[in-house]
Amino acid sequence: MSTSTQTADGSAQPSPGVTAPLGFRASGVTAGLKASGRPDLALVVNDGPLQVGAAVFTSNRVVGHPVTWSRQVVADGVVSAVVLNSGGANVCTGPEGFLDVHRTAETVADALGVSAGDVVVCSTGLIGERLPIDTLLAGVAPAAAALSGTGGPAAAQAIMTTDTVPKTADLTVEGDDGVWRVGAMAKGAGMLAPGLATMLCVITTDAVVDAALADAALRAATSQTFDRVDSDGCMSTSDTVTLLASGASGVAPDPAGFTAAVTAVAAQLARQLVADAEGATHDIAITVTGAQSQDAGLAVARAISRSNLFKAAVYGNDPNWGRVLASVGTVPVEVAAFDPDALDVSINGVMICRAGGAHEPRSKVDLAATREVHVLVDLHAGDEVVTLWTNDLTHAYVSENSEYST
Amino acid sequence: MSTSTQTADGSAQPSPGVTAPLGFRASGVTAGLKASGRPDLALVVNDGPLQVGAAVFTSNRVVGHPVTWSRQVVADGVVSAVVLNSGGANVCTGPEGFLDVHRTAETVADALGVSAGDVVVCSTGLIGERLPIDTLLAGVAPAAAALSGTGGPAAAQAIMTTDTVPKTADLTVEGDDGVWRVGAMAKGAGMLAPGLATMLCVITTDAVVDAALADAALRAATSQTFDRVDSDGCMSTSDTVTLLASGASGVAPDPAGFTAAVTAVAAQLARQLVADAEGATHDIAITVTGAQSQDAGLAVARAISRSNLFKAAVYGNDPNWGRVLASVGTVPVEVAAFDPDALDVSINGVMICRAGGAHEPRSKVDLAATREVHVLVDLHAGDEVVTLWTNDLTHAYVSENSEYST
Repeated sequence: MSTSTQTADGSAQPSPGVTAPLGFRASGVTAGLKASGRPDLALVVNDGPLQVGAAVFTSNRVVGHPVTWSRQVVADGVVSAVVLNSGGANVCTGPEGFLDVHRTAETVADALGVSAGDVVVCSTGLIGERLPIDTLLAGVAPAAAALSGTGGPAAAQAIMTTDTVPKTADLTVEGDDGVWRVGAMAKGAGMLAPGLATMLCVITTDAVVDAALADAALRAATSQTFDRVDSDGCMSTSDTVTLLASGASGVAPDPAGFTAAVTAVAAQLARQLVADAEGATHDIAITVTGAQSQDAGLAVARAISRSNLFKAAVYGNDPNWGRVLASVGTVPVEVAAFDPDALDVSINGVMICRAGGAHEPRSKVDLAATREVHVLVDLHAGDEVVTLWTNDLTHAYVSENSEYST
Repeated sequence: MSTSTQTADGSAQPSPGVTAPLGFRASGVTAGLKASGRPDLALVVNDGPLQVGAAVFTSNRVVGHPVTWSRQVVADGVVSAVVLNSGGANVCTGPEGFLDVHRTAETVADALGVSAGDVVVCSTGLIGERLPIDTLLAGVAPAAAALSGTGGPAAAQAIMTTDTVPKTADLTVEGDDGVWRVGAMAKGAGMLAPGLATMLCVITTDAVVDAALADAALRAATSQTFDRVDSDGCMSTSDTVTLLASGASGVAPDPAGFTAAVTAVAAQLARQLVADAEGATHDIAITVTGAQSQDAGLAVARAISRSNLFKAAVYGNDPNWGRVLASVGTVPVEVAAFDPDALDVSINGVMICRAGGAHEPRSKVDLAATREVHVLVDLHAGDEVVTLWTNDLTHAYVSENSEYST
């Protein structure tokens, strides 16, 4: 197959996002949930012919009411629409908060002529305060009226919180049986952590897939992409990634090809999330090679990505391999086998630590010159390779998270 | 028993630290390891009659050569002296680095007339660079010459790195059989994490104890104190806490009383470490009640203490209970049982979250007015109570750790 991709970054045209595939309409409007007056309510509607849906959610045990609701919605593999709001997360808001979700789904269902039980609800914003529900509900009719086959970018705009840019991506696959597409949008600019970020994502496709394949492909894609982005180690209560399939292309791709396409689009969005993480000045790719398993490599990469000391050093353009080794050493032997005296560390291609000791001089690594920092750790304990993305720890991160309540 | 304590903070006289008990001499001198010219080499000598010693070390798998050496030294329960240097950690320095430790111990042993195999070596500073070993060794004779029964404060001064104040504590126990004492010093102002901080600590006592009791008391004390301080979640490669017993008081306390006294002194130092953590503006005590076990409560407290989002909020004087719940929710159910809808959170005595939802208004909590922040989380799942100390995440932390290499 051949593929063509567009992203919001680096191309003249923004990606159409969720409306890139056939069979979808979307919109983004201002309901009035945000004091700023910016768009805060988005709709994505699947016009079929299929109404296949799947979703993965945060693994946090404290979850928002929208997550509780949406888990029920996707259980039967049928999703007609997704409604998403910024300006309030509807988490820890008591029984009234759950009723607010229910009313939101009912109102959207009425406006679209679908069943409330097929409407996924996603909310993002402050925890612990009820949504101004009347304001939200009043925005549903305008959002439904604004739905269009080119509404993807507007929807992506409406779900932003501390994001500085909207995030969209799409992919067109020209297979032997015909052309089909995957489109997507996401928000999330902090609290990116395993088991997903504080991140809302909607992925659409006009491929012909059943609920089982949609679910399997989505889980495979998120485990390789969003689950390998760890900005600040904090896990959100509201993360939701939904996949909708309309079947409008009439093409039924093979499962491996479909999974690869969904993964590719998710990877683009994950990379955009890292690039827009709160206050970051460096995007850090941590690659662990020579691991005895994917889990072992991921545990080592995760330990490095959680080191505030290392992340502060990168902010200071200091290729501090000692802090890398110190964090690698915290991984228990039963989780990852390695000999501490065999560890190699390269930063941006310069092997500054070899066999657990200093090698090339630090001065050969010029972190000030690059936004991307590539850390390569060789465990010499196997053949598996894992990459995890994170960011540096900066003054701007502290400012944003001490001055902005979530 | 009755006790009296002194600490460096809040008393007119600094605590004599490691020279508070009978049978010990100490010193701190400038060998020239630090560019600043500040004292950087300390000795603590046990003049007996007993030469009992025990130590606990970092649980990091990447350890400094001094840790490897000192583990062997304490294996037989006999320790004559401890030599400590700042200005270089001697970690990841290859085989030559281990020889440097060996030569240091030999030189100290020769100067004191003891066996090198009874000399604990501790080093702190930058990882990955060899110590200027000739400079260090040349400092041993002056350090030995400066030894005195009032040298505790000088020794505490010489082990400082980014510490802003020396840390000493002592305790006098007037038991039924006579008077005995515990004294101590510590350094460590960042990278305070479980399994000890980047922290060097020497505890002395003139009680009559054997190696088994010394080891058991030290492990019990550290598990309740230093292991419950978690400043930035980073674990050092060099942490060492050594206990030396001279027996010079002639008093053999009961094991429980001895353990309590060692724990009390360690608790004082742990509290001083938190108060001096890099760049902190708030000391945060996280108390988890209603846990089904100590381990469960500690896991929950640790999850909160690792939340950069919560710690940044505290820096911004925002009593953000939503971020507390979001971090509590990351603890797996097999680690800690709780119902997310039953969680209560109080901050500085105000219950701002009850049964998983908003309760008292946030405005009732004035974090700007206090250095200490007390977070109380009730899991309603048992009877155990655990307290862990941490700090807020501040601009000064980022500055210190992006501009200073360790």
